[in-house]
Amino acid sequence: MLNFYSIYLEDAVNEIAKLPGIGRRTALRLALFVAKNEEEEVVRLSEALLKLKTHLTTCQHCFNLSDDINCHICDNPKRDKNTVCVVQDIRDVMAIENTNQYKGVYHVLGGVISPIDGIGPKQLKLAELFQRIEEEDIKELILALPATVEGDTTNFYIHKNVKEKVPVITLLSRGVGVGEELEYTDEITLGRSLLTRIEFERTYGKVED
Amino acid sequence: MLNFYSIYLEDAVNEIAKLPGIGRRTALRLALFVAKNEEEEVVRLSEALLKLKTHLTTCQHCFNLSDDINCHICDNPKRDKNTVCVVQDIRDVMAIENTNQYKGVYHVLGGVISPIDGIGPKQLKLAELFQRIEEEDIKELILALPATVEGDTTNFYIHKNVKEKVPVITLLSRGVGVGEELEYTDEITLGRSLLTRIEFERTYGKVED
Repeated sequence: MLNFYSIYLEDAVNEIAKLPGIGRRTALRLALFVAKNEEEEVVRLSEALLKLKTHLTTCQHCFNLSDDINCHICDNPKRDKNTVCVVQDIRDVMAIENTNQYKGVYHVLGGVISPIDGIGPKQLKLAELFQRIEEEDIKELILALPATVEGDTTNFYIHKNVKEKVPVITLLSRGVGVGEELEYTDEITLGRSLLTRIEFERTYGKVED
Repeated sequence: MLNFYSIYLEDAVNEIAKLPGIGRRTALRLALFVAKNEEEEVVRLSEALLKLKTHLTTCQHCFNLSDDINCHICDNPKRDKNTVCVVQDIRDVMAIENTNQYKGVYHVLGGVISPIDGIGPKQLKLAELFQRIEEEDIKELILALPATVEGDTTNFYIHKNVKEKVPVITLLSRGVGVGEELEYTDEITLGRSLLTRIEFERTYGKVED
């Protein structure tokens, strides 16, 4: 246990150390940086945190993060509202958006079914997803959940509930990562990647003679 | 480059990512935690950072961190004012205090001489140290600077300037760490540790027959 002999330093270290993944030594390093930093900078950090908490909300439609009632994706008339990509977390929305490959909309579950962590369907935005499926004209549901047991469980649960109502349900393809060496790919991924092999031209496009 | 689509989230990530050792992905993780956290907690963090900046100062005597003009160590009548331990940084004060082995006072240089980083004697609290030596009755100066080339340079610089004025100048002993296996000790440390070997009874105390 570290002794600080400064109530201000001790308070700041205690508060910073509550952040996830920040231990007390890192908290001390950050607090000392803050103590030595320009006052203007510290005010900016402090206010940014408060504003983030008070202003940021979630989209009432897809549960993505939003500064408004609806997020910029739901509000964008150019997005394809008939395609809905189901993800675990808002960070996955960011990751997919950054690929620039997706023009549909999202539904953020807020997690995956995980009995061991006490997370059942009711803790997730699944009722809201099923309601969207009743009310909207969804032609394709893309299940982009993690490739884990919990992700699989959630995939099956969703599929069972909506398979009669959505024309196409797809999954992200699983396989050898682009740029990855086969010898470093785990055997389950490699095996599955072999079973779900796809035609040459679907990967490389039509090759002229 | 991540897209956020929320000015509040983007601002918070930008500010958090200015902290040392915090990249943009970690900043995002922390910002999302803050966004989901209780408002009361966020207010407490935000205020602790501001108060730390506005209230924490450095001791005018030894340059340790302090909530007051003089730090709790300089102010403590039980501390031995004739023994001064010279350290690089306030974190070293904390580390030494936590050993509960030291009853003297400190002098925090704020760094070590490092021409490659543009740090010369004038950037450090060396003039203040030499003035303390002129004005106070210092009987022992302990040089507890890092065991690096820069630490050695600073040790030599201080020694040259004060050797006529301080009766005893000592260094932290260097050697095999307590609990460390010899085979994992680097050869320079091990070699030096052999050259500076000390008498059995200085380590273990007097052993009765």
